[in-house]
Amino acid sequence: MFPDGVTSSGAQGTLTNLSVQVGTSCPLGVPQMEMNETYQLIVSPDNSQAVITAQEVWGALRGLETFSHLVFNSAPNTYQVRSANVVDHPRFPHRGILLDTARHFLPVGMILRNLDLMAQNKFNVFHWHIVDTEAFPYESVAFPDLSKKGAYTPNHVYHQADIKRVIAYARLRGIRVIVEFDTPGHMGSWGLGQPGLLSDCFYDNKTVNPLKNIVDPTKNETWSFLTTLFNEILSVFPDNYIHMGGDEVLENVKTCWLNNPQVQNYMNQKGYGTDYTQLENEYFNKLLNMVQGARNNTKVVVWQEVLDNNVNAPGAIAHVWKGNTSTEMMEEMANVTKAGHYAILSSCWYLNYIKYGNDWGYINNSWVRERGMYYQCDPTGFDGTDQQKSLVLGGEAVMWAEFVDATNLIPRLWPRASAAGERLWSDPAQTTSADLAWPRLHEFRCRMLRRGYPVEPPNLPSYCPQPWDPDYDFDDVSNTMSTTTPSGAAALVASSLLSISNAVILFLAVRLC
Amino acid sequence: MFPDGVTSSGAQGTLTNLSVQVGTSCPLGVPQMEMNETYQLIVSPDNSQAVITAQEVWGALRGLETFSHLVFNSAPNTYQVRSANVVDHPRFPHRGILLDTARHFLPVGMILRNLDLMAQNKFNVFHWHIVDTEAFPYESVAFPDLSKKGAYTPNHVYHQADIKRVIAYARLRGIRVIVEFDTPGHMGSWGLGQPGLLSDCFYDNKTVNPLKNIVDPTKNETWSFLTTLFNEILSVFPDNYIHMGGDEVLENVKTCWLNNPQVQNYMNQKGYGTDYTQLENEYFNKLLNMVQGARNNTKVVVWQEVLDNNVNAPGAIAHVWKGNTSTEMMEEMANVTKAGHYAILSSCWYLNYIKYGNDWGYINNSWVRERGMYYQCDPTGFDGTDQQKSLVLGGEAVMWAEFVDATNLIPRLWPRASAAGERLWSDPAQTTSADLAWPRLHEFRCRMLRRGYPVEPPNLPSYCPQPWDPDYDFDDVSNTMSTTTPSGAAALVASSLLSISNAVILFLAVRLC
Repeated sequence: MFPDGVTSSGAQGTLTNLSVQVGTSCPLGVPQMEMNETYQLIVSPDNSQAVITAQEVWGALRGLETFSHLVFNSAPNTYQVRSANVVDHPRFPHRGILLDTARHFLPVGMILRNLDLMAQNKFNVFHWHIVDTEAFPYESVAFPDLSKKGAYTPNHVYHQADIKRVIAYARLRGIRVIVEFDTPGHMGSWGLGQPGLLSDCFYDNKTVNPLKNIVDPTKNETWSFLTTLFNEILSVFPDNYIHMGGDEVLENVKTCWLNNPQVQNYMNQKGYGTDYTQLENEYFNKLLNMVQGARNNTKVVVWQEVLDNNVNAPGAIAHVWKGNTSTEMMEEMANVTKAGHYAILSSCWYLNYIKYGNDWGYINNSWVRERGMYYQCDPTGFDGTDQQKSLVLGGEAVMWAEFVDATNLIPRLWPRASAAGERLWSDPAQTTSADLAWPRLHEFRCRMLRRGYPVEPPNLPSYCPQPWDPDYDFDDVSNTMSTTTPSGAAALVASSLLSISNAVILFLAVRLC
Repeated sequence: MFPDGVTSSGAQGTLTNLSVQVGTSCPLGVPQMEMNETYQLIVSPDNSQAVITAQEVWGALRGLETFSHLVFNSAPNTYQVRSANVVDHPRFPHRGILLDTARHFLPVGMILRNLDLMAQNKFNVFHWHIVDTEAFPYESVAFPDLSKKGAYTPNHVYHQADIKRVIAYARLRGIRVIVEFDTPGHMGSWGLGQPGLLSDCFYDNKTVNPLKNIVDPTKNETWSFLTTLFNEILSVFPDNYIHMGGDEVLENVKTCWLNNPQVQNYMNQKGYGTDYTQLENEYFNKLLNMVQGARNNTKVVVWQEVLDNNVNAPGAIAHVWKGNTSTEMMEEMANVTKAGHYAILSSCWYLNYIKYGNDWGYINNSWVRERGMYYQCDPTGFDGTDQQKSLVLGGEAVMWAEFVDATNLIPRLWPRASAAGERLWSDPAQTTSADLAWPRLHEFRCRMLRRGYPVEPPNLPSYCPQPWDPDYDFDDVSNTMSTTTPSGAAALVASSLLSISNAVILFLAVRLC
C-alpha cells in the first residue's frame, strides 16, 4: 500500500508552516488572458518546510491547490503531506467551462459552486453563455425590459449584484469570466423586451413565421440599441475578451433575411443579392468595430463560422465547435489556424452529450462527438505547422443546458470535465493514457466528494475509501490530477511524508488577496 | 390560464377538513402483493368537503397522494385544491424500482429519499439488489464475515438496524421491500467471507482463473450454508416474496463448472454430461424448495432464465429482462406467459442506460433498450391470450449502479421513472401518448422539486414557475400524473376550486397507522 519503507504513521517531521512568496503585489483587477500561473512548490522533508513561489498571485493559487492535493488524511484527525518539488505551469492559457443559463436557469449559488470545482481542476475561464433564444436572464440597466419580458420569470434573472458577485468570486480563484451575448442568431428572447430588434420572418413571401430568432441588421435603431447595450456589458464584465457568438446563423437566414422584403431590399441596394454571408460579414464588421472601440483592449471570441466566413477581425479567437469525428474536428482546427486565427477547441468536449459508461476516457474506439473519450482530445493534435499550433490557446468543456439545471449540473459535469482539465493543463506527453489517468481521476473524484461536491462516479463499480482505510493505495495517487507539468520538472518524493499541523490546513481557506 | 370562469382567487368555498375512511383496521404487518390500493377521493365544491374512502390503508395512502396533487399554491401562502371525484385503482399489483447497492453503495438516507419519491409516484415495490459480485454489504448475523470481508469497507455495510429502518419506512408508504440475493452466479463477493463456497475456475484443465463468481452446488457445505443464510434472510425481510436471482449463469459455466474436475465429476455421476442446465435446474429445485419450505407463504421471483430453463417452480414470477428491441421484449413476455408463468417486465425500463435527450418518452422511432421511450412500454403489449395477459403482474424500472451512487441517483432516476410509474398505475387507453403526458410530467417534476428532491429536467428548455406566476397553466395539469384510472371514473371538476386551510395541508404529514 505505502511506498517502500513508509507507513501511514511514518512521517519524517511535522510541517507547521506553508510559506507563499509572490513576486508582484496583488492586482486590483481581475485575471486576464496574460496572467502568469507558473509556480514552484517545495515540500521538503529535510527541514520540514513548504514553500510556494510564484511571480503572480494566480500562480500561487494554483500552487495552493496542488499543495492541497498532496495532503492526506492518513488516520482520523491526522493529516500528512507528501514531500514534493514541483515546477509547474499550464500548457494552455485558456482552459474553460461553458455554462448555459438560458435553456435552464442556474441559481447564482450553483454557479459559485461550479467555480469552486473549476479552481480545484485548474480551469481558468468561466464562459457564461448567459442568454439565448429561450430566455434573457441578464438584467440590463439600460434596457430593463429585456429581462422583464425575456426572462422565464422575475425569479429567473441575474441582477447586476449577482453578476458582480460571480465575477468577484471567480477572481479570488483566478478564474476569468467571459460573457457571451450570442448574435445575430439565437436572439429570440431579446425580441420580447425590444420590439423591432429582430427580423420579421416569412415561410414564403406572404406567410409569417412567428419564430423570430435573428437580428434585423438593416435598421438604424438596431445599431443604437446594440451600441448602448454592449457599452453597458463591457462596463459590467471586466475581462478583456467578450464572446460575440455568431453560430448557426444559417438556420434563420432563409425565412428571416432572404424572405424578408425589407432585408432583401437592403441586400439588393448593397449589391449582395442573396449572398447572406455578405450581410453577416457587414454585421460583424460593424459589431466588432463598435465593441472593440468601446473599451480599450477589448478583444473578441467568436464561434468559428464568423471567421470561416472571412469576417475581418484581427486578433479574434475562433471558438471551434464543428466536426463530428476526431478527424473532422482536427481538420477544423487546422483550417482555422491556417487562416491565421487564434483558436480554442470545444468540439470534442460537448459534455452535455451523455451516454452510458465511463465516457471521460473510454466508450468506443472511434472517437466521435457523441461518444466521449474526452481524455483523448488534444487541441493541437492536427497536421499543421508550429506557427499554426502556437495559435491554439486552449479549449473549453461545454455544458449546453437543454437537459441540465441545478438538480443535475454538478454530478453530470464533474468529474467528466476533469479529464478535459488535465489535458488542458498538463504536459501532453504525460497525459496520453486514460489507463494511467484512471487512478488519478478516481482519487481526485473522491477528494472532490470529501470536499462536499456531489461529483458522480466516473468508473465501474468502486467506492471512495476513507484515506486511512487499509486498502487505500498511496501509490495510485503519487501523481495527482492536473499537476503533471509541461517541463517534466515535477518530482513527488513519494517515499517521504510529513505530518501536517492544523495551522497549515486552515491556511488553505485564507484569501491571498 | 385558468379554466373558464375561474380566477386564482375565485375559490368557491374553504376546505377545512379531509376525512379519511378506511374499511379495515391498520395492519400490523407490511404490505404484500395482495394489498388493496383502491380508493375513492371526493373533493366537493357543494359542501366544501373532502373525503377519501378506501378498503385498506394502502388505498388511503394512494388517495392522500392524489389529494396532494390536487393542491395548488395559487398565491404566496395561499393554497387551493381542485375539486374532484376520483375512483382509482392500479392497473398492475407489482410496480417496482430496482436499486443496486453492490456496484456502488447507497447510504440508508438515500434509500429513504428514494422511497419518498416512489410513494409520490405510486410505486409499491422496492426491489433491493443488495449484493453482487463486487460487494456484499448485507450484514449477516449468522455469517458476519460475509460483510466484514465482502463489503467495500466497514462504512459500506447495511446493519440489521438499517434494514429494519428501510422496511419500516417503506411500510408507512405502502411499499414492499423485496430483497434479491442473486445466485448461483454474481456471487464473487460471497466467497471472500465464506471460503469454499464458490467453484474453483480454470481456463483449461490446469490454468486457474482467479475470478470465482459462481457457487459450487455439489458440496454439502454449500447447502448447510445456504440453508442457514436464507433462513436468516427470510426472518429479516417480511415480504412473502424473495428474489432469488438466477441471471447470467452461463457467463461462468464454462470455466467454473465444466472445467472444474470436481463439479464435472459430480455431473458425470448424475448423468448430466456437459449439460449445465441440468445442474442449474437441480440447484434451483433444491434452493427453491428449501426457501419455500423455510417460511409459510414464501414465494419467489427469479430472473427469467431460471424458468426459461424449465426449473420446476410453481407460482414463481419470471422477471423478464431480455430483449433489445421492443419486438424481442414482447416475444420474451409472450414466451414466459405461454409457459404459464407469472411475469414482471424490466427489459424496457433499464434506466441505467442514459442518453442525451428527453428519453422518458422520445429519442427515436425504433424502440430499443438503449434508446429510452419508457412511456411507450406496455407489459401486456404482446400477442397472447387473455389468460397469458392475466399472468402479467407489472414491471420494474431498474437502476443498475455501475455508474450510479448517492451523488447522481435521484436526478438520474427521476422523473424518468415517473414515465414507467404512470404506465404501471394507469389505464392503458389513457396513457398511450407521450405528447399528452409531457405537461403532466413537467408539472409533476416541478412538484417533486418543490418538495425538495433534485429531480432533473425531463424536457427541452423549461423552468418551474411558482404556481402563482401568471403563466402557470392550470389547464395543463388538470390530469395529474398517475391519477388517470383504469375504470375511467376520474372526474376532476377543473372549473371548481376550493381554498384550503393549513389544517388540511398539515394533515398530509400525519401518519395514518
